[in-house]
Amino acid sequence: MSLLVVGSIALDSIKTPFGAVSDTLGGSATHFSVSASFFTSVQLVGVVGDDFPPSHVAFLKTRGIDCEGLERAAGDTFRWWGEYGQQLNHAKTLDTKLNVFETFRPALPKNYCKPTSLFLANIDPAIQWDVLHQVARPGIVASDTMNFWIQGKRDALLRTLKDIDLLIINDGEASLLADECNLIKATREILTMGPKWLVIKRGEYGAVLFDGTTFFSTPAYPLETIRDPTGAGDSFAGGFMGYLSRVGKKDGATLRRAVVYGSVMASFNVEGFGLDRLRTLTRQEIVARYQAFHALTAFEAGPVLFDEVHEVHGKTHAV
Amino acid sequence: MSLLVVGSIALDSIKTPFGAVSDTLGGSATHFSVSASFFTSVQLVGVVGDDFPPSHVAFLKTRGIDCEGLERAAGDTFRWWGEYGQQLNHAKTLDTKLNVFETFRPALPKNYCKPTSLFLANIDPAIQWDVLHQVARPGIVASDTMNFWIQGKRDALLRTLKDIDLLIINDGEASLLADECNLIKATREILTMGPKWLVIKRGEYGAVLFDGTTFFSTPAYPLETIRDPTGAGDSFAGGFMGYLSRVGKKDGATLRRAVVYGSVMASFNVEGFGLDRLRTLTRQEIVARYQAFHALTAFEAGPVLFDEVHEVHGKTHAV
Repeated sequence: MSLLVVGSIALDSIKTPFGAVSDTLGGSATHFSVSASFFTSVQLVGVVGDDFPPSHVAFLKTRGIDCEGLERAAGDTFRWWGEYGQQLNHAKTLDTKLNVFETFRPALPKNYCKPTSLFLANIDPAIQWDVLHQVARPGIVASDTMNFWIQGKRDALLRTLKDIDLLIINDGEASLLADECNLIKATREILTMGPKWLVIKRGEYGAVLFDGTTFFSTPAYPLETIRDPTGAGDSFAGGFMGYLSRVGKKDGATLRRAVVYGSVMASFNVEGFGLDRLRTLTRQEIVARYQAFHALTAFEAGPVLFDEVHEVHGKTHAV
Repeated sequence: MSLLVVGSIALDSIKTPFGAVSDTLGGSATHFSVSASFFTSVQLVGVVGDDFPPSHVAFLKTRGIDCEGLERAAGDTFRWWGEYGQQLNHAKTLDTKLNVFETFRPALPKNYCKPTSLFLANIDPAIQWDVLHQVARPGIVASDTMNFWIQGKRDALLRTLKDIDLLIINDGEASLLADECNLIKATREILTMGPKWLVIKRGEYGAVLFDGTTFFSTPAYPLETIRDPTGAGDSFAGGFMGYLSRVGKKDGATLRRAVVYGSVMASFNVEGFGLDRLRTLTRQEIVARYQAFHALTAFEAGPVLFDEVHEVHGKTHAV
């Protein structure tokens, strides 16, 4: 039972209305791995520079994450500088330095080649395709992407999409990829590109799952304390894929629970800067919030209106 | 069992990417009444000019709406001109002519004075307060408002809020009223102003109910065809209050169902221009969409993660 992930590993400098941090542990593969590590065994593929603090690797290892695929290259680690306004819903990128990430071409360790599930985090779609074809076909293959690749490497992205089972992107990316403002029409269009399932992340508004026939839609967990949204989408994907990997099923009810576990992990992630909140998180807290999520969204299917018409009034006016 | 509503009655001219209409039947009290009429008996308080087509009054009466409180004044009916862009999430007001609405001071017919529930639709808060104090205290009093009154008539609005049970507003209005970006903090703040319950409408993202302790959150129904969002919020309120009025209860489970019926009515309203979709709507369709809403949002509370850890793996790695 192993979940392989390839993506970015970064040192993030983040400013929000609630504080600022410099060179904190970040990146898509990092947030994903730490989130997923609460559910399953994770194998991490990524690159860091020779400036990457050994304490960060030590932390990943305490989470049970297999770091054999973590390449250390000469040069500096990928860095991102970002800032959020009062609304916290949009990151303004101040600067990006790809550094060792720019020339990264992953070569997987031998014992990484039979993962039970695979997540291709936000990274060049050519690298996503390459990693996917270095492994025996896993039980489930999912990927993320972003506007930069949708616009700049569309052909490579479409090639990757043909080979995956599930795409996890946000609503803006879905609209751009499908060239369609209406989210429901966009989801139908995207499923013609290859994936069997699509998960749309909507930030503070929740997430939507579509299997080509049926929609599942869930709001986000209501939070009074949101310190830093960085990595929320990757934490979502980590909870989602981690849960699927753990239970080893992909039926409709399981996928719905996975969306909620993803939402739970994202909700914890944003409570602290970078990965801070996940450093102290416990499984008991995850289970409690999953239950709270159910209480937040549950309503009774019945009695239906017509029964109540009959019970309460006996007669009704014109319909 | 009667639901009294006071608010605007308008002739709307609307342009969206999917068409345009001129002088179509609109207004907060109108959308509310027609929506609520599927659930309960409605008494309508409002004013129209001598140009108001008799066919509109005839339509309201076919919906079983009591129009004794519909005043006809010398002059033109309130008119609104609006336009929506491709995203359909924001109306750009091109022009407004208050006309007879400007000097409207409702005097309620005698048999309107004991409603079982009351909705103060979006209108001058001084008029809301005045209407509320012309009736014997109903079982539930709810109101809407808008930025114009929050900013321009705050004192009158706060006086009305002290006397109501439930406020139904959108997320932007909640932030403005509470002077707080975080929606959860804003809801807590607003409940200190008087209402026992707060419903926040989030348009395409659904709705949130808060009772001071517990949140209920539901997404919007996913629609491929959205022709005109005008009146969606009023249709929501009509379904919400209509349902509460019908069942004559206001416990937590009933309020949650009311939010979903409100969401159902809003989802139908936006499928056509103005009130067009509600003209052909049936109760069977309402019930079917309520059930579809349940299917859209339901997920299993269990088995919880720890049980599954035990069942699926037998052992787990470090937590």
